[in-house]
Amino acid sequence: MRFSIAHLGPTGTHTETATLAYTQWLKETQGQDSLLCPYPSIAQTLQAVAKQEADFAVVPVENSTEGSVTITLDTLWELETLQIQKALVLPITHSLLSRGTKLEEIKTVYSHPQALAQCQKALQKFLPQVQLIPTSSTVEALRDLNQDPENKTVGAIASSRASQLYNLPILIPSLNDYPDNCTRFWVVGLDAATNGKYISLGFTTPANQPGALVRPLSVFAQREINLTRIESRPTKRSLGEYLFFIDIEGNATQTDVHAALEDLPQYTEVLKIFGNYDVLTVD
Amino acid sequence: MRFSIAHLGPTGTHTETATLAYTQWLKETQGQDSLLCPYPSIAQTLQAVAKQEADFAVVPVENSTEGSVTITLDTLWELETLQIQKALVLPITHSLLSRGTKLEEIKTVYSHPQALAQCQKALQKFLPQVQLIPTSSTVEALRDLNQDPENKTVGAIASSRASQLYNLPILIPSLNDYPDNCTRFWVVGLDAATNGKYISLGFTTPANQPGALVRPLSVFAQREINLTRIESRPTKRSLGEYLFFIDIEGNATQTDVHAALEDLPQYTEVLKIFGNYDVLTVD
Repeated sequence: MRFSIAHLGPTGTHTETATLAYTQWLKETQGQDSLLCPYPSIAQTLQAVAKQEADFAVVPVENSTEGSVTITLDTLWELETLQIQKALVLPITHSLLSRGTKLEEIKTVYSHPQALAQCQKALQKFLPQVQLIPTSSTVEALRDLNQDPENKTVGAIASSRASQLYNLPILIPSLNDYPDNCTRFWVVGLDAATNGKYISLGFTTPANQPGALVRPLSVFAQREINLTRIESRPTKRSLGEYLFFIDIEGNATQTDVHAALEDLPQYTEVLKIFGNYDVLTVD
Repeated sequence: MRFSIAHLGPTGTHTETATLAYTQWLKETQGQDSLLCPYPSIAQTLQAVAKQEADFAVVPVENSTEGSVTITLDTLWELETLQIQKALVLPITHSLLSRGTKLEEIKTVYSHPQALAQCQKALQKFLPQVQLIPTSSTVEALRDLNQDPENKTVGAIASSRASQLYNLPILIPSLNDYPDNCTRFWVVGLDAATNGKYISLGFTTPANQPGALVRPLSVFAQREINLTRIESRPTKRSLGEYLFFIDIEGNATQTDVHAALEDLPQYTEVLKIFGNYDVLTVD
């Protein structure tokens, strides 16, 4: 039986690259074959798993330059049943693709808002006059470019893999503002995830109480458990009401981590544990 | 002398509405006249103040549905010299504008990604088949619609004020998913901001130490000072390194707040105080 793995499509997105790395790891370590299933949005890839249309979804969580992918956090909180099976960290290089051969000729650059944001300083430096047009994925723009193959005044920011897939030359190989640009992805499924070195969880706190956030965080700090990330998201009900996503280092079978997780509910209103998983680093 | 106030343009954006509310307040309370200066991006409005091209900038900070406007936080951290003079909270209603008269006719909807995100559930319910196209502001789309006045298959999500300014009928008056949709804006300038009930600050912490975030937060919690917001942003240097933006309730002249701010630097690496300001609520 092959696993079906949902990801943001169409073919050529960075999420597809992450998904391919995960399927290769599944093949090498478990002899497992997989089938990639592209979806038009991140929310739909997660819903596909919740509805059991797909076994897993690979979704971007945060980028080292642009920060959290909020739709991933919001959808995970909403769907409730999903568990993080693994994290993947992938270096992300954005290339400028165009049929034009000179930078001065480029008048318009298309890409996903995250990619445009990860290249904003370089764009300001090398292409200060161009019009930037957001698209729904880095690949969407390439389809537009291919509809008018004679046009040398348009460019798109996408991966070098997309350059090959869509037969578009690379004008600038690396346009990202920060050389160490990386994205963390999560592989999400329905199985309980209990083996691993990291735990992700989300919670709300009683509103308008001094120390309301410090108390749940102290549960970990007083046991010397490392908090590797915190992200706040609006509850969407009212301005100033938040839910918090945190990642900690540890496994729930360790005595101190177990005790912290037992302690935590007295300081939270709603608490959801999203899984206990390992990180796979991809070169 | 008139104040010059930079804001995200063109005319008709929600940020312009917030700016108009602020100029009206300036006129009523101080008899002060102002000149609105539209800029093509949020970063450019803040840079205009840093370069003394404008006296103030009005910028969106966070929305109750979609959360932080990260470019505002990142630019404020980078520019260093800017101080928050006032916060404004504005209810935000998104309308669907179109020359079409039936929902079934609409094939494409344009808007800013924040507006599309704040209406995603309503779009899925009422217009499940339409193509959503992101634009650089809610108003940008209206210009496109006006280039082809015969086309009844396109719509745009924008304010009712934009509907009047650009002479486009409203097909659905309120499309936002949550009725209490609000955005908080900051008025930013170069003057030291010391009078007010809220303090915003940003800091980095020593990396990879358990409790590194709890310690600076405890400085406020142990004095019963309310933390009204926390937001983490990547340092952009390396995945997993963050800076934190927090808002607390208090004035730096209060004994406990003063003591907390004196205590804070021993637990932070870089610390920036962005001002001590009041909130103006706009109906």
